[in-house]
Amino acid sequence: MNTFGETITLTIFGESHGASIGAVLDGLPPGAALDWDAVRAEMARRAPGKNDMSTARVEKDAFEIQSGFFQGHTTGTPLCAIIRNGDQRSKDYDQLRHVMRPGHADYSGKIRYHGFNDYRGGGHFSGRLTAPLVFAGAVASQILQGFGITVGAHIRRLSDVEDRPFRETGEPAATLAALKQQTLPVLNAGTAAMMESRILKAKEELNSLGGIIECMALGLPAGLGDPFFDSVESQLSHMLFSIPAVKGVEFGSGFSLAGWKGSEANDAFYYDDDSSVKTRTNHNGGINGGITNGMPVVFRLVVKPTASISLPQETIDTDTEENCELSITGRHDPCIVQRAVPVVEAATAWTLLDILLSAKGRQAL
Amino acid sequence: MNTFGETITLTIFGESHGASIGAVLDGLPPGAALDWDAVRAEMARRAPGKNDMSTARVEKDAFEIQSGFFQGHTTGTPLCAIIRNGDQRSKDYDQLRHVMRPGHADYSGKIRYHGFNDYRGGGHFSGRLTAPLVFAGAVASQILQGFGITVGAHIRRLSDVEDRPFRETGEPAATLAALKQQTLPVLNAGTAAMMESRILKAKEELNSLGGIIECMALGLPAGLGDPFFDSVESQLSHMLFSIPAVKGVEFGSGFSLAGWKGSEANDAFYYDDDSSVKTRTNHNGGINGGITNGMPVVFRLVVKPTASISLPQETIDTDTEENCELSITGRHDPCIVQRAVPVVEAATAWTLLDILLSAKGRQAL
Amino acid sequence: MNTFGETITLTIFGESHGASIGAVLDGLPPGAALDWDAVRAEMARRAPGKNDMSTARVEKDAFEIQSGFFQGHTTGTPLCAIIRNGDQRSKDYDQLRHVMRPGHADYSGKIRYHGFNDYRGGGHFSGRLTAPLVFAGAVASQILQGFGITVGAHIRRLSDVEDRPFRETGEPAATLAALKQQTLPVLNAGTAAMMESRILKAKEELNSLGGIIECMALGLPAGLGDPFFDSVESQLSHMLFSIPAVKGVEFGSGFSLAGWKGSEANDAFYYDDDSSVKTRTNHNGGINGGITNGMPVVFRLVVKPTASISLPQETIDTDTEENCELSITGRHDPCIVQRAVPVVEAATAWTLLDILLSAKGRQAL
Amino acid sequence: MNTFGETITLTIFGESHGASIGAVLDGLPPGAALDWDAVRAEMARRAPGKNDMSTARVEKDAFEIQSGFFQGHTTGTPLCAIIRNGDQRSKDYDQLRHVMRPGHADYSGKIRYHGFNDYRGGGHFSGRLTAPLVFAGAVASQILQGFGITVGAHIRRLSDVEDRPFRETGEPAATLAALKQQTLPVLNAGTAAMMESRILKAKEELNSLGGIIECMALGLPAGLGDPFFDSVESQLSHMLFSIPAVKGVEFGSGFSLAGWKGSEANDAFYYDDDSSVKTRTNHNGGINGGITNGMPVVFRLVVKPTASISLPQETIDTDTEENCELSITGRHDPCIVQRAVPVVEAATAWTLLDILLSAKGRQAL
Repeated sequence: MNTFGETITLTIFGESHGASIGAVLDGLPPGAALDWDAVRAEMARRAPGKNDMSTARVEKDAFEIQSGFFQGHTTGTPLCAIIRNGDQRSKDYDQLRHVMRPGHADYSGKIRYHGFNDYRGGGHFSGRLTAPLVFAGAVASQILQGFGITVGAHIRRLSDVEDRPFRETGEPAATLAALKQQTLPVLNAGTAAMMESRILKAKEELNSLGGIIECMALGLPAGLGDPFFDSVESQLSHMLFSIPAVKGVEFGSGFSLAGWKGSEANDAFYYDDDSSVKTRTNHNGGINGGITNGMPVVFRLVVKPTASISLPQETIDTDTEENCELSITGRHDPCIVQRAVPVVEAATAWTLLDILLSAKGRQAL
Repeated sequence: MNTFGETITLTIFGESHGASIGAVLDGLPPGAALDWDAVRAEMARRAPGKNDMSTARVEKDAFEIQSGFFQGHTTGTPLCAIIRNGDQRSKDYDQLRHVMRPGHADYSGKIRYHGFNDYRGGGHFSGRLTAPLVFAGAVASQILQGFGITVGAHIRRLSDVEDRPFRETGEPAATLAALKQQTLPVLNAGTAAMMESRILKAKEELNSLGGIIECMALGLPAGLGDPFFDSVESQLSHMLFSIPAVKGVEFGSGFSLAGWKGSEANDAFYYDDDSSVKTRTNHNGGINGGITNGMPVVFRLVVKPTASISLPQETIDTDTEENCELSITGRHDPCIVQRAVPVVEAATAWTLLDILLSAKGRQAL
Repeated sequence: MNTFGETITLTIFGESHGASIGAVLDGLPPGAALDWDAVRAEMARRAPGKNDMSTARVEKDAFEIQSGFFQGHTTGTPLCAIIRNGDQRSKDYDQLRHVMRPGHADYSGKIRYHGFNDYRGGGHFSGRLTAPLVFAGAVASQILQGFGITVGAHIRRLSDVEDRPFRETGEPAATLAALKQQTLPVLNAGTAAMMESRILKAKEELNSLGGIIECMALGLPAGLGDPFFDSVESQLSHMLFSIPAVKGVEFGSGFSLAGWKGSEANDAFYYDDDSSVKTRTNHNGGINGGITNGMPVVFRLVVKPTASISLPQETIDTDTEENCELSITGRHDPCIVQRAVPVVEAATAWTLLDILLSAKGRQAL
Repeated sequence: MNTFGETITLTIFGESHGASIGAVLDGLPPGAALDWDAVRAEMARRAPGKNDMSTARVEKDAFEIQSGFFQGHTTGTPLCAIIRNGDQRSKDYDQLRHVMRPGHADYSGKIRYHGFNDYRGGGHFSGRLTAPLVFAGAVASQILQGFGITVGAHIRRLSDVEDRPFRETGEPAATLAALKQQTLPVLNAGTAAMMESRILKAKEELNSLGGIIECMALGLPAGLGDPFFDSVESQLSHMLFSIPAVKGVEFGSGFSLAGWKGSEANDAFYYDDDSSVKTRTNHNGGINGGITNGMPVVFRLVVKPTASISLPQETIDTDTEENCELSITGRHDPCIVQRAVPVVEAATAWTLLDILLSAKGRQAL
């Protein structure tokens, strides 16, 4: 349930308004030198309260290492980090116990946990739970770098504003790195301002926006993954659909392939000048038959508009068992797409590291 | 790897040109009376060689039960079924050892298995491996029926021909049942003939087509699934991306949500006349926060155009380590979308049964 | 690795001299009202520093709940507890980096973790890691009580002093409860003083002692467990062999059965006056074919003498790569058998709760 | 349930009187050249009906490879083997549906599977299910040999007849190999005849005998296994307790350690002439803190006397719900200890190969 992975496992815990949230990272290779400042920088990308585009809840998301790190290196035993919850206003959420927010897990969670779930701030369903995920991904990213693997993402679309797509056969690693410096990571510099204005306008209208995030992993060797039932697509999508608000995932040319012919969709192989095997196009997103083929892995996912909006909405009150109207008053994000970018990178990095390390046990003798 | 599931596990084995392919179904509830004729009917929907739209390889896909079934009921111990391979022409595939088909797993699989994989007919990567999946799903479907749960799918799009979408708040179970009777399962009767003509034309042109399959599950109770990391979307997509040629999965309104506002995307809850909780719309596809909310689960997936085409293609020869041209001569499908429909239903049924049974161990005391 | 269980999972983390040790309990049924004082009482049974028979390291083993508990009940989401490390004297352990203590994991752990493990106080291998296990077991015990299931253990043997065995067909629950009140839990009151004197004498001699713990679970229904590969014996022994110093586990009459005949070993079934099924004897320890038969589950395990002793010992220095002599000077227990009793009960309770809850998903329809 | 392992998984299926029993071996390294004759020789060691000491049921235990093997090598995809059931006399077992054999899983299995289990010949609980286990172990053994790892076992005790123990610091590999040639594998040649006479006498008396098997693995590198919760002891015992009739497992000096002092139990490390690290004694059975230390892994397990005996026994009839007397008339073994020897070796080989391959993904970078 709250543990994911095969060779390395990630366990997360916590609720939005509990004492702390955190993660246990198990199976990490011993001897990895970790740069905690770099991890903090990743945490800061996701952290709320930094600008007008996100919730007013201010959380520093400072993590405290409990175990698994000794004399500057991972030990190989479980690395636990906790992040204390700070700026809570639980009173804002009293109503959530019985008035179900549309688009949220209030109702489905209430049934799932028989009414015993911590409903304050969405509890365990809160987007806040992605903070430990970013922590884990930032650790994984550093280890992946040692293998020459880089993960980066941008906002492919926000509401009606589109950024240019990644070149499917690969972007320079520097491009991916540069994206991490932007509040609204895009490839066409001009689109960021347009996206920001859309977000601020939605905020003004007490409404919210969604978008599409595109992610690329460079440097993966060919031969990773398993055809049944652990294709690279299977493992990545399993993790990605755990991120709140994600409702679709597509690899390579994705849903567009429905209208193409085989002669258009197939990626022709060729030997490059350095004798490496490449494909002319990369409509398959670097994956054939569930296995990496050495080309960049590329995918997109859709983040639905934030479910919390201040406009009045029709819903139910489970106390009175009657229909009612709800106007959400707590703090919330008019758009979480930009904050979801480092979460997607983190989820991807963790999963790819697991796939990479698991492959070591499956090689020929 | 080749085992999937938590409370019930499905293990599949086999290669396209080996002695047999098969499945081991473990953890099934004891005492389920299974109708083998109904299972055979599902197998026949997927089986090749029935019409001009599929490969000429004729396979009856007759299964032989080895264990786990006694006196008309499941025993609760592993149910193994094997399906013998019949109409093999391995000679057709000699070339596949060293000439890599674009869009196929020939190259990635060769690297993954260090050149030891059975390359004949795609080996373990063959679409033929979906036969045991259909077997397992057909068994699961019968058990789900006892819980009042029905799964059905149609071709939402084939190349440029579109069928009407499912009504997101639910279709009559009879509609889903009727789809299973059609060679090209569609809701708008007229579209089937257009789809067929597209397929036959592609075949004539030595090319292939893809499409989109839409699937719906009716009757699921609210409260199934887990937020991290086993959301219903996570578990379903994990399984669905195991099906060869699937490159994208979206739930509810999926990628369209990127352009919507929160006020449009949220599904308003209400108490229906019978006091049951429903939503006015179902843009979230019956899932909030990874947990079912009692509405139908709806999703779509894209099936890319069949990678095997007879048109000449650029590729590599790993023996000579040179670029070359390839014209595939073996038998293959100009379109597998229609044959994939029962596979998608089967994969969905198996996964939902697992989710349903797993929930039993997680309930309040 | 550090996660155990199927329907409920326990993840532990921490090192003897790190910031904290702790546990994440996932999958607990929502709505369980937990008595934290009772959990504290269990923790106190294991805690060190209480008397002359254990290490002088004083640890209160106070736990802090981070998540998963709300308004007096489990939420069903992960319950995390951390226990801060207090009375550390890391200097005592500097030598452990390169002088390998015989009988300890210093050497095997150094190889396993490539020299990056935290060697202070045994690090992750420390018996201190059983504190989170006792926490988890105490929680599980309370939930098991709701099902009428009780687990209890006594010191069957300490060095050459033997307590009387459990009556294999069952002890009164009150007897099991009474054992929990004793520092050296035994059935024959007189033996405790003899055991204590043996321990104090070993301490005086700078040596250590081992023993045998016998454990019984009352109230388990028939039909739990799985023949392959998750027999009740398999699952219990998997967990029990995780407890440091355990080197053997036997169920029912265990190794004695080697000398018996079938007519002696078989437990005759009979219908009791209340029509329940029982066995006249219980040489099989309540388990037939890996499945509970409704009789008490009984097993014994051996705890080897504490590896840390102050007597000089021959060993190696991995810095100099030479043989050397070692006299351990840090604080340690002359005998851990008595402190292991609540650990064994906890490990058993957790595993049985998992087996019990997992069975719910496997029942007939 | 019926799947075991982490990097390599073994799934078994079948019932004593069904169509076939079999195994799916997944995750094997691609490219392993397997000698099927050697596998057949191992199968023959376990097969019944060869002499007066075993059941009269004659089964050749011929296996048929269905998948995963191509051109003389493992492919890396699932290797499935089926073994057809031959000499069945189901009529012998009609009574088993309602008259519960003492010491067998008839009753516990009936409850577990709600009366739907195949009771003929013990069904899925039959010792016959160890045939696929021997198959899997024989495959694993061949792969282990490539790593210089050998597993061997002998009958340490049969009823009151004892063989000499293994030298705990290691036996020559040739000694282990020689044991595989014996019907009653022992180190002291003289004891075999005594054991045989005990078995034949028990048979004459319509009774049965048990014993102790001792097993040793040579050549394992130091550093394998995980402290929590996957110690080498945990993983081996999990598998070993799946073997029918096993009721106890002990490593190294096992239960004897209860009476020893630390100074006696600790194994002193030393550098050998070739600079390798060894221990003077091996009371810990090659495992410290759950991790291999480079010394031979040694353990013993007890096999209870065969539960099926022809002497009249008291039991219950679940049809009449009354107590009754039972005299078992079917064919059965007066002693299964000798046939269990190759099963124990196989179970050990499979588990050790999994531990070894899993360690590859956990190494330092």
